[in-house]
Amino acid sequence: MKKYTNIKDISNLQETIKEAILLKMNPFEFSDLGKHKTLVMLFFNASLRTRLSTEKAAKNLGMNVMILNVNDAWNLEFEDGTIMNANTSEHIKEAAQVISQYADVIAVRAFPSLTDKQKDESEFVMNSFVKHATVPIINMESATAHPLQALADAITITELTEKPKPKVVLSWAPHPKALPQAVANSFVEMMQNMDVDLTITHPEGYELSEAITKNTTINHNQEDALKDADFVYVKNWSNYKDYGKVLNQDENWMMTKSKLGKAKFMHCLPVRRNVVVEDAVLDSEQSVVMQQANNRTFSAQIVLKQILEDL
Amino acid sequence: MKKYTNIKDISNLQETIKEAILLKMNPFEFSDLGKHKTLVMLFFNASLRTRLSTEKAAKNLGMNVMILNVNDAWNLEFEDGTIMNANTSEHIKEAAQVISQYADVIAVRAFPSLTDKQKDESEFVMNSFVKHATVPIINMESATAHPLQALADAITITELTEKPKPKVVLSWAPHPKALPQAVANSFVEMMQNMDVDLTITHPEGYELSEAITKNTTINHNQEDALKDADFVYVKNWSNYKDYGKVLNQDENWMMTKSKLGKAKFMHCLPVRRNVVVEDAVLDSEQSVVMQQANNRTFSAQIVLKQILEDL
Amino acid sequence: MKKYTNIKDISNLQETIKEAILLKMNPFEFSDLGKHKTLVMLFFNASLRTRLSTEKAAKNLGMNVMILNVNDAWNLEFEDGTIMNANTSEHIKEAAQVISQYADVIAVRAFPSLTDKQKDESEFVMNSFVKHATVPIINMESATAHPLQALADAITITELTEKPKPKVVLSWAPHPKALPQAVANSFVEMMQNMDVDLTITHPEGYELSEAITKNTTINHNQEDALKDADFVYVKNWSNYKDYGKVLNQDENWMMTKSKLGKAKFMHCLPVRRNVVVEDAVLDSEQSVVMQQANNRTFSAQIVLKQILEDL
Repeated sequence: MKKYTNIKDISNLQETIKEAILLKMNPFEFSDLGKHKTLVMLFFNASLRTRLSTEKAAKNLGMNVMILNVNDAWNLEFEDGTIMNANTSEHIKEAAQVISQYADVIAVRAFPSLTDKQKDESEFVMNSFVKHATVPIINMESATAHPLQALADAITITELTEKPKPKVVLSWAPHPKALPQAVANSFVEMMQNMDVDLTITHPEGYELSEAITKNTTINHNQEDALKDADFVYVKNWSNYKDYGKVLNQDENWMMTKSKLGKAKFMHCLPVRRNVVVEDAVLDSEQSVVMQQANNRTFSAQIVLKQILEDL
Repeated sequence: MKKYTNIKDISNLQETIKEAILLKMNPFEFSDLGKHKTLVMLFFNASLRTRLSTEKAAKNLGMNVMILNVNDAWNLEFEDGTIMNANTSEHIKEAAQVISQYADVIAVRAFPSLTDKQKDESEFVMNSFVKHATVPIINMESATAHPLQALADAITITELTEKPKPKVVLSWAPHPKALPQAVANSFVEMMQNMDVDLTITHPEGYELSEAITKNTTINHNQEDALKDADFVYVKNWSNYKDYGKVLNQDENWMMTKSKLGKAKFMHCLPVRRNVVVEDAVLDSEQSVVMQQANNRTFSAQIVLKQILEDL
Repeated sequence: MKKYTNIKDISNLQETIKEAILLKMNPFEFSDLGKHKTLVMLFFNASLRTRLSTEKAAKNLGMNVMILNVNDAWNLEFEDGTIMNANTSEHIKEAAQVISQYADVIAVRAFPSLTDKQKDESEFVMNSFVKHATVPIINMESATAHPLQALADAITITELTEKPKPKVVLSWAPHPKALPQAVANSFVEMMQNMDVDLTITHPEGYELSEAITKNTTINHNQEDALKDADFVYVKNWSNYKDYGKVLNQDENWMMTKSKLGKAKFMHCLPVRRNVVVEDAVLDSEQSVVMQQANNRTFSAQIVLKQILEDL
């Protein structure tokens, strides 16, 4: 693997998922592979799970890890040709090349503005790193994608499914704050590459980008969409058409035990209890959110392993 | 050891102190014990000594260490059943369980509010981690206790005492800011478990919790209390009865060379010079604060060692 | 080496540079030298390159690294005899001694105020650590010096020079913010110790300290100064006489391709594009800023190596 900024970077998904499940059984099997190799993790935004699981994964492979909260340093410039006499102190051209000299792999987290749709969709932070860095880049959640989460979700569904082609439903949920579409986007793209029957349900007007959803079934009737589901992935995203707005906080879209039926409940976390999903779901045996979070280590570890093998 | 949130978690104090003193002579003797084990250190509050000494201790044992300043991520919810539509983004139930999957041991620092006595005394942060985490929890100073400091203090007194039952005095000192009772509480509890003659001295009205002091001698006359002391532990705490208030800044309670007599001077640090204690004391041979600070590494290391041995 | 706070601490510069170039070819040759040794890195100010390259260097030598952003803890007191009843919580005497007990080497970054010339020139932060710490101190940029950068620059010039005594020009550049003189100072002092022909050019009134420049050629005519240069080091500094002021932002002092001639372009980074230097220079083959940044790892590594060998 040459980089992992998008799930399309995985060449053989089924093989990768299987290998991740094997890693999980023996996490230290390749603890020499990363010897004298350094992962630099760059955070433009806060992180708990992604930070700890990715650091853990790298150390399981014997890598050194260096972490920088970029905002603790200074603002980076991403535009070409700018006269940098204002708030930015260093151009991404220099920053990415310099960090590449201290790193064998760079992992980046950079959320969208949710105010400038075109700029967010250009993935200017992640793509600038890909363009200017001279080492592989891993996406730890960017403006439009969260491929490490999606891979962990694919591992989780693979581990848990009891039938060949399970029904998977992505169900929008209310949330008081404007959240990115990144998790939903990558989950949809991942499911489109797996042998599942995918349905998306959300209020009218909350369509994700058509470039993502393509011909996936969209059903605005949540009850109908959830019928006979095997896995229900609940997630809020802010409006995509009226970009970044919170136009709907309808509590009726919260996931409940009765709506869930016999399905497994999935969420990427952090989750707001009794807003996105009621306690009864999270505290039940049907919730697999801990397994998803645990698999974050192994999605990062399999990606790092494949990158290290291709260095 | 299954956890270390309170000095009561030590089953054999004398043995533990002796073993810590042995570790200090040979810090890398057990440098394979922590192989492939991870300590996650979570800070809700600032730290210098605790952070560095605990990280050092873990690495002496060969552990991996991952550090998270929780406030750099987001606010955690600790109440059950809340509708989380306000400032908290993740419930401790999820956070503690998730982090447990990335950690073999979790260490937590979480100071009291000093405004809500009942909530502070409930130790809701530390106890929530104990309740919801699935790995051992270490207290790096909580609302009401600082057991790693107290263990370092016990080690120091054991190393230095020249008589079987030394006289130890805990002497309150003035301070401009409201400080927790945690260090004083744990020191008192630790001394109650050692073969020492303990006296507490403070201005009237500055009593610590009776649940802590029990039948320990309290003397409001500092001069009288300090008489023939072998060890004088100086520490400010804010008022416990009129909870968290700074009701007294009487400079006469500052520790001086003349008051100290021939006793050893102890303090947990950081210390405000010429407010809590005069320069002449800190700069004298009688001050053992550096030895206390050094023993922080070995108090953390013996606790981690005992926990690792019981995993 | 007993410390590295100033380039004067290098006893044999030519030998040290040669050894650094050897290290660069085989960075892991001494990966056992730092076993069970700990570098504590203390940041009073932001850092990207210095932080990552110094951490990398230490790990290349097998050291443990612990990093503390001091401002995340609390304010340190540097004055002797103060009654510490205001904003400072711990005296440097205690802090430096305590950290020395957890570290084998301490690296410190502490920028100048640029408002109090006398205090900045006293190097009170760096010198307080040297005075009170009991382990070697490394300067990761102080009020008046940046010796790790200067050593990286010396390595770079040594690697690249095609003649015995190259002409090196330090050329001031405009900048919207008040920057320290530290990089310029250490570069000048380093070049004075190398077999180069050094010229400094800057607007009248922007003289560096005479204690630094001594009898080095200063030419206020930039075009004339740059004539036949082999290496041009561009750097802004705020006014030294009218201390810390930005009195000149004359764009004509920006480095351009035509001014540069056939010289190599050097800068310590971060650099503001099209303010300090135009894009055409940075994006050309003549720019060696990436080589300088890469050599930061090996300047730190050779310093750490020499310190470890003398422990």
